[in-house]
Amino acid sequence: MREIVTILFDEFETLDVFGPVEILGRLEEDFHLNFYSLKGGIIKSSHDVPVCTKPLNSLNLEQYILMIPGGMGTRKLVEDEVFLERLKALYLDAEYILTICTGSILLAKTGFLDGKNATTNKRVFKWTQEFPKVNWVHKARWVRDGNIYTSSGVSAGMDMALGFVADLLGYDVAKKQSIQIEYSWHEDSSWDPFSGDFS
Amino acid sequence: MREIVTILFDEFETLDVFGPVEILGRLEEDFHLNFYSLKGGIIKSSHDVPVCTKPLNSLNLEQYILMIPGGMGTRKLVEDEVFLERLKALYLDAEYILTICTGSILLAKTGFLDGKNATTNKRVFKWTQEFPKVNWVHKARWVRDGNIYTSSGVSAGMDMALGFVADLLGYDVAKKQSIQIEYSWHEDSSWDPFSGDFS
Repeated sequence: MREIVTILFDEFETLDVFGPVEILGRLEEDFHLNFYSLKGGIIKSSHDVPVCTKPLNSLNLEQYILMIPGGMGTRKLVEDEVFLERLKALYLDAEYILTICTGSILLAKTGFLDGKNATTNKRVFKWTQEFPKVNWVHKARWVRDGNIYTSSGVSAGMDMALGFVADLLGYDVAKKQSIQIEYSWHEDSSWDPFSGDFS
Repeated sequence: MREIVTILFDEFETLDVFGPVEILGRLEEDFHLNFYSLKGGIIKSSHDVPVCTKPLNSLNLEQYILMIPGGMGTRKLVEDEVFLERLKALYLDAEYILTICTGSILLAKTGFLDGKNATTNKRVFKWTQEFPKVNWVHKARWVRDGNIYTSSGVSAGMDMALGFVADLLGYDVAKKQSIQIEYSWHEDSSWDPFSGDFS
């Protein structure tokens, strides 16, 4: 059983979080989900979904999978030194890191993506120019580099989550999950019809 | 601006709710989201997502779009007379009703689907036999009958939500939303590769 620590913040993108949560959460013998925020309490997504969270300073897991969503809230967080210091500390004990959409920008800001391959939301790809030490992959549904998975925008997080499950637990487990939720999984991480529109 | 009333209950299916919420919530000039449950308070999805809800008896909207998700929790709710009476009352003032996955079974139980076309999760299609007065459509991503939209399992709710947006606000609005969330929309409501596996 692995613990998944999802970092929430005001104006996180709803589906960035709950697409992967649906996929990982169904595998209840393999994963347990936890929702944290900097100070705890009720956090609202960009679409006014109020989620109850625990404060990050109450986290006492030795190891976990760290999940970082994107959304409008990242614009503010990328300048928040307290949050970034906390994120750096979280990174150190993470067995795997999964970012969705502009969650990879937050990780880039910590410096931990330097020299690594990564991707992000195709509509804000220009933002990546602020982090030239990262090898940004423009055309990718998701990118794996070691224990770090980064996905393209919003719904790409579901394909990445299934890819992560395939890597960790086997292709058949991932495929079965995709069928159970009647999802047409884009299995090829280089599939990306959205990269051209916003380059 | 239309109000959307989403009914949550313990063990609702995470993506049933937050897939459509992502799509409708992005159209913030057109829709406003509200999350209710029978008694209010914190409701947890099947995947332990804790969402804050308002109690249904505090709802005082004259008109709204009613959204009913599915999930394991429906097994219990379909026998809950208090919930079903509340659902009947909610139905009467709804301009549109959207159900996802086994949410259509809850609506069927109220009798309001009698004589109407509808669909549901393909893995529990046998459950529909308990409601023979409904014209259940086996092969469908989603079904519209008048002001009632019903979708297949889990991720099908996203395609239905986009179809609903297309009907209400125009195809271009829906298409644009799908591109912005990098989602490969299945625009044809009769597309359904999942119907064969569980018939």
